[in-house]
Amino acid sequence: MTQTVGHFIGGESVLTEGRTQPIYNPSTGQICGEVELASVETVEQAIANAQAAYPAWRNTPPAKRAQVMFRFKMLLEQKSDEICQAISREHGKVLHDAAGELQRGIENVEFACGIPQLLKGEHSKNAGPAIDSWSEFQPLGVVAGITPFNFPAMVPLWMWPAAIMCGNTFVLKPSERDPSSALMIAQLAVEAGLPKGVLNVVNGDKEAVDTLLQSPTVQAVSFVGSTPIAHYIYEQAAAHGKRCQALGGAKNHSVLMPDADLDNAVNALMGAAYGSCGERCMAISVAVAVGDEIADKLVASLKDKIAGLKVGSGLDNSNEMGPLITAQARDRVKGYIDAGVEQGAELVVDGRDIVVPGHENGFYVGATLFDKVTENMTIYTDEIFGPVLVVVRVDNLQQAIDLINRHEYGNGTCIFTRDGEAARYFCDQIMVGMVGVNVPLPVPVSYHSFGGWKRSLFGDLSAYGPDAIRFYTRRKTITQRWPSSGVREGVTYSFPS
Amino acid sequence: MTQTVGHFIGGESVLTEGRTQPIYNPSTGQICGEVELASVETVEQAIANAQAAYPAWRNTPPAKRAQVMFRFKMLLEQKSDEICQAISREHGKVLHDAAGELQRGIENVEFACGIPQLLKGEHSKNAGPAIDSWSEFQPLGVVAGITPFNFPAMVPLWMWPAAIMCGNTFVLKPSERDPSSALMIAQLAVEAGLPKGVLNVVNGDKEAVDTLLQSPTVQAVSFVGSTPIAHYIYEQAAAHGKRCQALGGAKNHSVLMPDADLDNAVNALMGAAYGSCGERCMAISVAVAVGDEIADKLVASLKDKIAGLKVGSGLDNSNEMGPLITAQARDRVKGYIDAGVEQGAELVVDGRDIVVPGHENGFYVGATLFDKVTENMTIYTDEIFGPVLVVVRVDNLQQAIDLINRHEYGNGTCIFTRDGEAARYFCDQIMVGMVGVNVPLPVPVSYHSFGGWKRSLFGDLSAYGPDAIRFYTRRKTITQRWPSSGVREGVTYSFPS
Amino acid sequence: MTQTVGHFIGGESVLTEGRTQPIYNPSTGQICGEVELASVETVEQAIANAQAAYPAWRNTPPAKRAQVMFRFKMLLEQKSDEICQAISREHGKVLHDAAGELQRGIENVEFACGIPQLLKGEHSKNAGPAIDSWSEFQPLGVVAGITPFNFPAMVPLWMWPAAIMCGNTFVLKPSERDPSSALMIAQLAVEAGLPKGVLNVVNGDKEAVDTLLQSPTVQAVSFVGSTPIAHYIYEQAAAHGKRCQALGGAKNHSVLMPDADLDNAVNALMGAAYGSCGERCMAISVAVAVGDEIADKLVASLKDKIAGLKVGSGLDNSNEMGPLITAQARDRVKGYIDAGVEQGAELVVDGRDIVVPGHENGFYVGATLFDKVTENMTIYTDEIFGPVLVVVRVDNLQQAIDLINRHEYGNGTCIFTRDGEAARYFCDQIMVGMVGVNVPLPVPVSYHSFGGWKRSLFGDLSAYGPDAIRFYTRRKTITQRWPSSGVREGVTYSFPS
Amino acid sequence: MTQTVGHFIGGESVLTEGRTQPIYNPSTGQICGEVELASVETVEQAIANAQAAYPAWRNTPPAKRAQVMFRFKMLLEQKSDEICQAISREHGKVLHDAAGELQRGIENVEFACGIPQLLKGEHSKNAGPAIDSWSEFQPLGVVAGITPFNFPAMVPLWMWPAAIMCGNTFVLKPSERDPSSALMIAQLAVEAGLPKGVLNVVNGDKEAVDTLLQSPTVQAVSFVGSTPIAHYIYEQAAAHGKRCQALGGAKNHSVLMPDADLDNAVNALMGAAYGSCGERCMAISVAVAVGDEIADKLVASLKDKIAGLKVGSGLDNSNEMGPLITAQARDRVKGYIDAGVEQGAELVVDGRDIVVPGHENGFYVGATLFDKVTENMTIYTDEIFGPVLVVVRVDNLQQAIDLINRHEYGNGTCIFTRDGEAARYFCDQIMVGMVGVNVPLPVPVSYHSFGGWKRSLFGDLSAYGPDAIRFYTRRKTITQRWPSSGVREGVTYSFPS
Repeated sequence: MTQTVGHFIGGESVLTEGRTQPIYNPSTGQICGEVELASVETVEQAIANAQAAYPAWRNTPPAKRAQVMFRFKMLLEQKSDEICQAISREHGKVLHDAAGELQRGIENVEFACGIPQLLKGEHSKNAGPAIDSWSEFQPLGVVAGITPFNFPAMVPLWMWPAAIMCGNTFVLKPSERDPSSALMIAQLAVEAGLPKGVLNVVNGDKEAVDTLLQSPTVQAVSFVGSTPIAHYIYEQAAAHGKRCQALGGAKNHSVLMPDADLDNAVNALMGAAYGSCGERCMAISVAVAVGDEIADKLVASLKDKIAGLKVGSGLDNSNEMGPLITAQARDRVKGYIDAGVEQGAELVVDGRDIVVPGHENGFYVGATLFDKVTENMTIYTDEIFGPVLVVVRVDNLQQAIDLINRHEYGNGTCIFTRDGEAARYFCDQIMVGMVGVNVPLPVPVSYHSFGGWKRSLFGDLSAYGPDAIRFYTRRKTITQRWPSSGVREGVTYSFPS
Repeated sequence: MTQTVGHFIGGESVLTEGRTQPIYNPSTGQICGEVELASVETVEQAIANAQAAYPAWRNTPPAKRAQVMFRFKMLLEQKSDEICQAISREHGKVLHDAAGELQRGIENVEFACGIPQLLKGEHSKNAGPAIDSWSEFQPLGVVAGITPFNFPAMVPLWMWPAAIMCGNTFVLKPSERDPSSALMIAQLAVEAGLPKGVLNVVNGDKEAVDTLLQSPTVQAVSFVGSTPIAHYIYEQAAAHGKRCQALGGAKNHSVLMPDADLDNAVNALMGAAYGSCGERCMAISVAVAVGDEIADKLVASLKDKIAGLKVGSGLDNSNEMGPLITAQARDRVKGYIDAGVEQGAELVVDGRDIVVPGHENGFYVGATLFDKVTENMTIYTDEIFGPVLVVVRVDNLQQAIDLINRHEYGNGTCIFTRDGEAARYFCDQIMVGMVGVNVPLPVPVSYHSFGGWKRSLFGDLSAYGPDAIRFYTRRKTITQRWPSSGVREGVTYSFPS
Repeated sequence: MTQTVGHFIGGESVLTEGRTQPIYNPSTGQICGEVELASVETVEQAIANAQAAYPAWRNTPPAKRAQVMFRFKMLLEQKSDEICQAISREHGKVLHDAAGELQRGIENVEFACGIPQLLKGEHSKNAGPAIDSWSEFQPLGVVAGITPFNFPAMVPLWMWPAAIMCGNTFVLKPSERDPSSALMIAQLAVEAGLPKGVLNVVNGDKEAVDTLLQSPTVQAVSFVGSTPIAHYIYEQAAAHGKRCQALGGAKNHSVLMPDADLDNAVNALMGAAYGSCGERCMAISVAVAVGDEIADKLVASLKDKIAGLKVGSGLDNSNEMGPLITAQARDRVKGYIDAGVEQGAELVVDGRDIVVPGHENGFYVGATLFDKVTENMTIYTDEIFGPVLVVVRVDNLQQAIDLINRHEYGNGTCIFTRDGEAARYFCDQIMVGMVGVNVPLPVPVSYHSFGGWKRSLFGDLSAYGPDAIRFYTRRKTITQRWPSSGVREGVTYSFPS
Repeated sequence: MTQTVGHFIGGESVLTEGRTQPIYNPSTGQICGEVELASVETVEQAIANAQAAYPAWRNTPPAKRAQVMFRFKMLLEQKSDEICQAISREHGKVLHDAAGELQRGIENVEFACGIPQLLKGEHSKNAGPAIDSWSEFQPLGVVAGITPFNFPAMVPLWMWPAAIMCGNTFVLKPSERDPSSALMIAQLAVEAGLPKGVLNVVNGDKEAVDTLLQSPTVQAVSFVGSTPIAHYIYEQAAAHGKRCQALGGAKNHSVLMPDADLDNAVNALMGAAYGSCGERCMAISVAVAVGDEIADKLVASLKDKIAGLKVGSGLDNSNEMGPLITAQARDRVKGYIDAGVEQGAELVVDGRDIVVPGHENGFYVGATLFDKVTENMTIYTDEIFGPVLVVVRVDNLQQAIDLINRHEYGNGTCIFTRDGEAARYFCDQIMVGMVGVNVPLPVPVSYHSFGGWKRSLFGDLSAYGPDAIRFYTRRKTITQRWPSSGVREGVTYSFPS
């Protein structure tokens, strides 16, 4: 008997007896629950609840709103084990990895606690004679977030804490594949004192998404997912006149310079390529080796490390890598490996035939390594979103930079070097939004902002951090002069200067 | 014999012998020139020139780029008479009004002079142990601006000085109805030392606009114009994956409270309603009188003032109001007045039959005033963009606020009162982006930003000021750790926290 | 038998068997404990502990440091009753007033939680060709705070949370008259995870103060107290080369305009004048009435209200006003009242002979009101720091402003009016650091900063809020260029430009 | 016959027939003029003029004030040759070096042009329910600057443009040894439209300085000079209750790591050590070589370069180094060289006996180089302020850092290396305010701020850039609530929370 995961609307758990879809435990391949897929009406009900909660919440002083966040942070820390269990059960990532995800999400909550400071507007005395002018950053109203399966707890926490601290109310549509943690977390927000209706969660598929995009009430949409869907969301939001930030896919390259600290780099790459089974938009999936000497050493060293990698159930914390999210994902990744072989890449480690004893039906693919990959192969061009690392060999740093800049994505990248000049030149020239210098996963900390370049982000403001405050607010500029009874002013037909 | 106005590409004036369109002097109704309408090829040539100029310009330190702006400001001041003549001749606005417009534009240049300060990124020491992280705001590449006829000098200066100071190169498509001043100004920028190709100007129509929107090279589009076109631009830019800010139309209300300083308010309204013949997106076209007592006084006083209003050629600086931009605009405005009468409004002053001696073919409509206008009339619902002021009567401030908040536009508004509480409540509750308190045209100063709410602006960042710096840059966040040879780090498969 | 209050050094409570001084419960006039007065050696021991804790704390990433503050906030909320009991017992203020004080202090802790955001430096790419430059805000080392008796919990919380979040370590010398709450709070910080030695508390008198001022280890001193001592601290700190901010006394005027909402104003004044028995540097001690009409009404209304004011033990929450801090303070206040009568002021309500049944030895003075006070009287010129409100009558706003601007202090002030122009003119012209418009105690919220003008503050940065971050950090600016091996640069003997 | 240089008060050149002192041309050793030394009365007259000009200037909107700066920048560029002649004639530095100085000063003017942006305050909507709060940064009134001989044009431009753009009025006391350029520049400011009395210049000595320090009208003092005087100024300013920033001396070390690009480093050091004859507070006077290998190469290479150094009159632009400022300075520097020899340092190049043909009476000392200098020698401990570079040898970077951190000064320093980790560790650990990585004179650009650590700066805010805006303004925080007639509030005796 399985549990049905519904929605969270107006501060209450809601089941509608509508369409459902199974939820799998990827570690076992078994169904572990089912999730309701919201109808148009259900989504509209969530929007209506958010709309109803808006006026009072908007008028609550930011410092009072922040009290909810302070308590919420403490509750998240207290309940982290339960949340991580839910993440791991439905997503498959290993518990310690789920804990890392949640920790990052909590850091976004911490940032949101500073909202009274972050919301400050700009004030100009004497913008003109006895005229003052200032800008306020006011909430938008009801805003929506649509989030992916790979970080079911963290990505929602990128969005809604900042959004509601700005005074908005929110409708979240998490991934229907691993919906439970987002709902647990929403429940905690209400326990922390969030008024009902300020945060609503609907599970669903395209019907829910399109309802959010088309609603005249929804003022803005934040999205994280694959690039084709991100582009669709961006276009549709614009067609309906909304503001939108839509984060898409990635193909993140790391560059290994001949002077790199190779031991560190290999350790870093193992985590960055295979952690969370490669299902991260910041995963490193391409290693660009500058010169054959370091390339040979790199491949040899990675091969050794992969041999010792512990793959298995996400719920066993001794494992290092878990399964993929679905059987389809597993088959798609294997298909890419097949294609890599066909297209002539050198398959150094083959993860296709892995068997995890006791979990033979889990959606596993083992860590896979290709060498001598070239720019036209699909294992290079496409975001595989699985545990496949490809090595590309180049002769110098400029070639590495040009290669990366030609790729359609520009989310993250990193360089391993000891040389200040090489690092600075790389950071300057590279057309990528998040750059690491000897840091393999350069995810910005919560008080900076997250965003890629090129087809990895549609919109002009990045996710979380300072950009989120700007995205979730509308500027209102007030220009004020007071009449002095003794002073009469002449008519001015000209544009004032 | 008329002059042909072409394009400005790669630092040179370009004529292509392509399609043309006449330019009128609205004050006389005579053709005073013709303008080329750029073909796809011409626009692509401009884009290619901008692209070619980009790498060197991007690498020029901001403080050096700023030197161009300092000289450019001085040149604009020296050549202001010539520029204002061109504005007035092609647009029809009175010279002193053109001077006001240009002055506002120069203030945007002054703001752009501060670019070294404005471009500062955020730096975090010890984002983690011995890890530093910082955000840079890097240029986008080639960006485009599409600007309206009503401020042919100012609105381009809202856009490209900030954009190029951020390190971008620019293609401007000004209004084809009054194209000369934008070209004169671009020429001055090159005289001030701007490298060729950094700023390009193409004249044209939908063909030029669509070429800009579809070009994969153009990274961002700024637009100011009417709401339907703004929405089209926003949607198309999004469909092509670009960032976009598109400013649309307006119906700006002023509210007169019973305690208003009426003399000041009437003087202010005369300028705000009839200045530039009402062809301003910040013009006041609705006066909301709170209570019949002030409404009666207001209408009487306006009627008196209108009787003394000097209407005539824009090139005669003794006039207070000039013609509309085209014969079509004149006929459209008269049609609205006809409709207002038909729909039952009280026509207090009728500007339809004005004759300006010596300029009988000019595109004039006299200052027009309606009283007792209601919410369903087209003179209330539509942006007329002409010298038509409508008075709506309400009983209290809440009614005034609700009325304004129901309108589709939310660009500007103002309240006339002496009461601190009324002003604060109005500013807080009103869903409008730019709010004046006893200031009829609350155009933000150049170091704040310009943007409406609702269907007056599509996008999330406003025009000019601080928002422009953010719009014209991409955030790049760098996370840096240096390997210490003596320290080896363990493999981390979890998401780092 | 009484308890001895010692010091808190290196994370431990310390008793030294040195000099002591009694602690009184002002509500009863009884001794309720004794406090050690630190010797030079004890203070130096505290400084040495702070110095020892500095290197590790400085290197702890700000986001990790912030975790202590998050937990500390929760602990303060959990222990608030105990802390307020201690405040009230030793200071005499009513429990609900102590709770207000503590709440304000907690808000400073909340602000300090945002340290990762607040510490961000400024980064400039291409300050010159391939040269980057950025500023970091680094901690100072060991800093000291010296705080007054009137807010024994809040004022320390203005200082040390911000200071230690910036990476400094701290020695606090609270008032020796009511030392317990500061010690309890320091203990909670360690419970919250603050490493030992980061925060140290020494009780003492001038010997302790001078030791802090003369120590070469102490980098900066924050002080709040009376103006003569503030000036002494500022001068001595400067003589020893330290940075210093020293907040002094006040004589805060409120202005009542003829259009004021008198009922609100009188209610506000009652709290602002008599709350905490007038022992607040933001207390309103002068009411400037503009015109005799409002003056007469004001005096009559205040007289009525005072008659109903409940005065008694601070530990009884049904009281509205408690005793003064010491018998000396009581006698000094009575002396001022005597002088006011002698100098010709009209004594409307006389608080000299108050008897609180059951607490006949408590240090009580009843609420006192003078009318027709003039500028030369000592009840006008001096900071009485007791429950004495004086009414000064003027003819117009300009006279009120001139009067206030002539006074030596410029801490706080407020105006009661409904008129936007009067409020704006007052705020602009008044030489006072903290201004209220219809807000009697305009204490800035924790994310702004607290500071007076003229002889109310010595130094250039205010207390708490953004200024505190700047005060407790040193700017370090780094300019960086990397050599490219192929490029050789010419010698430059000129100053680089 | 010599010219008498007087004062500039109330927009007029003023001669008072008071005490005078000769001005020398250090290149020839001849007297080239005389300068008046202001009496108490003259300084008070300047202060009075500044005070009189203050109210109108304070009320001039910042954007209007900025117009003066824009024109002033252009005038400075137009008159730069004349100004540089005056600098070189009275100071002795070579003309191209004077041009570099002036250019840096102009950059401070450019920064000040952005004052409308820089003066923005912080605005908080709903700091409490319907309560808004904002901070304004208001001018102080009359402020004073006291500047040194070594940058007679630049250091005054660090101070007064920012100060007056903030709305203050100013009294400058430049060095009496080379006073002309500061006066010429003040004249240009008035030509640029600065109202008379806003900027005043008095020449003088201790009498003038003490008058400024003791004046109750002067609100703040900025000083740049030697450390003993800086400390005196800081202490005296504090004793008189003023805010003060006092920048003192320096002993700037550069560290050469074994991997440094030695050719670049030597070129850089030649300019940094001997440019302006070493009379710069950012001059490099100590080279710390890490390891004997690089030390030997460094000394050999410097010796070679020094042999080719062209020393002679500052007015001959083909020279690379000019004379010292006075005969006394020359003798003092020679005395240090004598002492260095006595104390056992290895004198590699001896500049004591230099003769410049045709200028035998000029105040010349040739470039001097010591090797194997140790920490106790006076050539190491003291700021020589002459063309003497000392080499200290250490074994590793940690020793270099410890050495620098033990020195009493902490103005500037730099490291030459290619290694990212070494650079980052050095920047982090070094207790110096301005740090260069492969940049020998890490003077912050004008939009950052200038300030050392330890005994190189007294006060908490640095010179120019953002810190100057804060130093030259007082924070005023306004908290505003408007009474709503229908709402009555209860009395609050507690401290509001």
